[in-house]
Amino acid sequence: MAKKLSILGSTGSIGKQTLDVVAAHPEQFQVTALAAGSQIEVLSKQIEKFRPSLVSVATAELAKEVQARFGHALQVEYGESGLQQVASAADAELVVTAVVGTLGLRPTMAAVLAGKEIALANKETLVAAGHLITDLARRKGVRILPVDSEHSAIFQCIHGESCKQVARILLTASGGAFRDKTRDEMQQASLADALAHPNWSMGAKITIDSATLMNKGLEVIEAHWLFDLPYEQIEVLIHPQSIVHSLVEFQDRSVLAQLGTPDMRIPIQYALAYPERLEANWPRLDLLSVGTLTFNKPDLTRFPILGLAFQAGKAGGSVPAVLNAANEMAVSLFLDGKIGFLDIERTLVSVLEQHAPVSHPSLDEILALDQWARETAKREIAG
Amino acid sequence: MAKKLSILGSTGSIGKQTLDVVAAHPEQFQVTALAAGSQIEVLSKQIEKFRPSLVSVATAELAKEVQARFGHALQVEYGESGLQQVASAADAELVVTAVVGTLGLRPTMAAVLAGKEIALANKETLVAAGHLITDLARRKGVRILPVDSEHSAIFQCIHGESCKQVARILLTASGGAFRDKTRDEMQQASLADALAHPNWSMGAKITIDSATLMNKGLEVIEAHWLFDLPYEQIEVLIHPQSIVHSLVEFQDRSVLAQLGTPDMRIPIQYALAYPERLEANWPRLDLLSVGTLTFNKPDLTRFPILGLAFQAGKAGGSVPAVLNAANEMAVSLFLDGKIGFLDIERTLVSVLEQHAPVSHPSLDEILALDQWARETAKREIAG
Repeated sequence: MAKKLSILGSTGSIGKQTLDVVAAHPEQFQVTALAAGSQIEVLSKQIEKFRPSLVSVATAELAKEVQARFGHALQVEYGESGLQQVASAADAELVVTAVVGTLGLRPTMAAVLAGKEIALANKETLVAAGHLITDLARRKGVRILPVDSEHSAIFQCIHGESCKQVARILLTASGGAFRDKTRDEMQQASLADALAHPNWSMGAKITIDSATLMNKGLEVIEAHWLFDLPYEQIEVLIHPQSIVHSLVEFQDRSVLAQLGTPDMRIPIQYALAYPERLEANWPRLDLLSVGTLTFNKPDLTRFPILGLAFQAGKAGGSVPAVLNAANEMAVSLFLDGKIGFLDIERTLVSVLEQHAPVSHPSLDEILALDQWARETAKREIAG
Repeated sequence: MAKKLSILGSTGSIGKQTLDVVAAHPEQFQVTALAAGSQIEVLSKQIEKFRPSLVSVATAELAKEVQARFGHALQVEYGESGLQQVASAADAELVVTAVVGTLGLRPTMAAVLAGKEIALANKETLVAAGHLITDLARRKGVRILPVDSEHSAIFQCIHGESCKQVARILLTASGGAFRDKTRDEMQQASLADALAHPNWSMGAKITIDSATLMNKGLEVIEAHWLFDLPYEQIEVLIHPQSIVHSLVEFQDRSVLAQLGTPDMRIPIQYALAYPERLEANWPRLDLLSVGTLTFNKPDLTRFPILGLAFQAGKAGGSVPAVLNAANEMAVSLFLDGKIGFLDIERTLVSVLEQHAPVSHPSLDEILALDQWARETAKREIAG
């Protein structure tokens, strides 16, 4: 029997690659629901190919257009409520949460509440509301399977092991587009420079987060929740080749690592098929052609945002949510050409300084603070 | 309750490190029997410290001496029968087979027959009699836990996974003392040169086997039996830093690797405590100070013995046993200064040419062919 999937964010980078994996294993997976934003041409092709029974788009207008194309055999919803319907679609067994940003929060909660297994590609969910999601998942007996290559690597290394015997985890980072740049060069950097990721082909927001190392900071916080580890047991290693996707050191001094080509289909498929490993036809890792793997310490002077993320994670409560929201706004302004690269970190520092932390924020409080952080970030830049 | 151990070869390199692990975890492990050769001073200290109830030494004379020292509270045996008594000691739960060479064959069989769990550090056992040992272990429901760092690495990577989903295993090799030497330099090499292993501190025989790559060849055959994989799915990678102890590629293109400092106590402890990972105080792996990991293809022109071992493994039957025995004799003659380094491979080729393979040799046939191969190797050199 094919596993029934619901995919949130099907027209984004992870969503498309998830559908590649589904297409490669038609016997194993079946798409039951898709949620997209406004790319309805891409979505329409996906609907034709994968025949979901429910889709959702950003707005009522787009929904009308999709409905007109496919007729009433297809249920078409829209907006926040449509996203939540896709997240909790009756026949879905596994929900892939591949929307970017805080937008993923409510639908992920809805999916967990509906008892769906989660393939989590939306790291902001755990960053902003890790305490709520992990608690709810525990109570509901729902498994959260990581899709991020680093967390998938750690998950694969820990599979079959006892989490209590983990001494530390080592998240690897490519170092991003500005790995070898000075602060002056970063100050001058153009949008195109920041979008030139050395190894991975990803969406724009995450590529900028790689360049600031914020992406790694978010992953540190995500790892804290996913693997229930204190921040003292989470480290970051710069590994420019992006071949070792992360490592786990156990208390017996043995270290396990997961390696692979920089191909997101590998961790996506692992999450979809877990605990099975399905045969895949994508290129194999050839260590002989890679030749050399290097590891360095991250430079927190050049990349202070990584330190900021560790601090926010340790502070806990509402702080990571505020950091994340301020970052989403700052990156969006950078992508729009409104601010320079180093303004991103200045904005984060300033928003965090103005934030009065809340220790156990509810979902509503998180979303309100998220809004506040975005507005504050925006004001900061206008001012 | 402490796990009761019997250790074959307690005064050798692996035997001593096994006792280091025991000493570090007095609550977890208890030594019930020890077998040594003729180093009775070392053995006596071990008896004082670990208080086994049974020991065995090489000869009746040595046994008398040990008996005199410790009185009749200690049962002292000797020779082949003593070794087998230690291997099947009534109260031992796990037998560590750390004797070097074909000598390990009968006692390992005895231990499996007695239903003991095996921590296998004697690779010659599986090389010479893999078909007999694995078959007997299966019938007896006995687990064979690898102690070799490479096989332990693969075992750790496969733990919790399905063997059917393994695409290939990649055994890493330091490349040995002559990794970067020409054939001419090997021709001229002294014993001291060959004994200068770059990373690991091991016994003399295995250090020479590392220099010829025979050690890796034996490991390939061992891996074939331990993990029930055809030779087409076993590869060797030269990895001079000896940090990645081996890798497993799964059919989903994900690769797991085990890493660590070159410290045999890690795999020894893993085998002893399996499936637990006990806390250890030995140095941690510091990838930052290692910095760079490299991988190359083994050069079968400079190291033809590795190719010979693959051929012998694929031929199967009695061929690996003959290769191994001829190698033991050739290395012993090299260690005695009787032959040059490159004479080792010449001897192996010549003995294999004279061997008429037997497809399913019995233990007696294996031991007879072992004897024949040694004599033929010796004659070869005399002639």
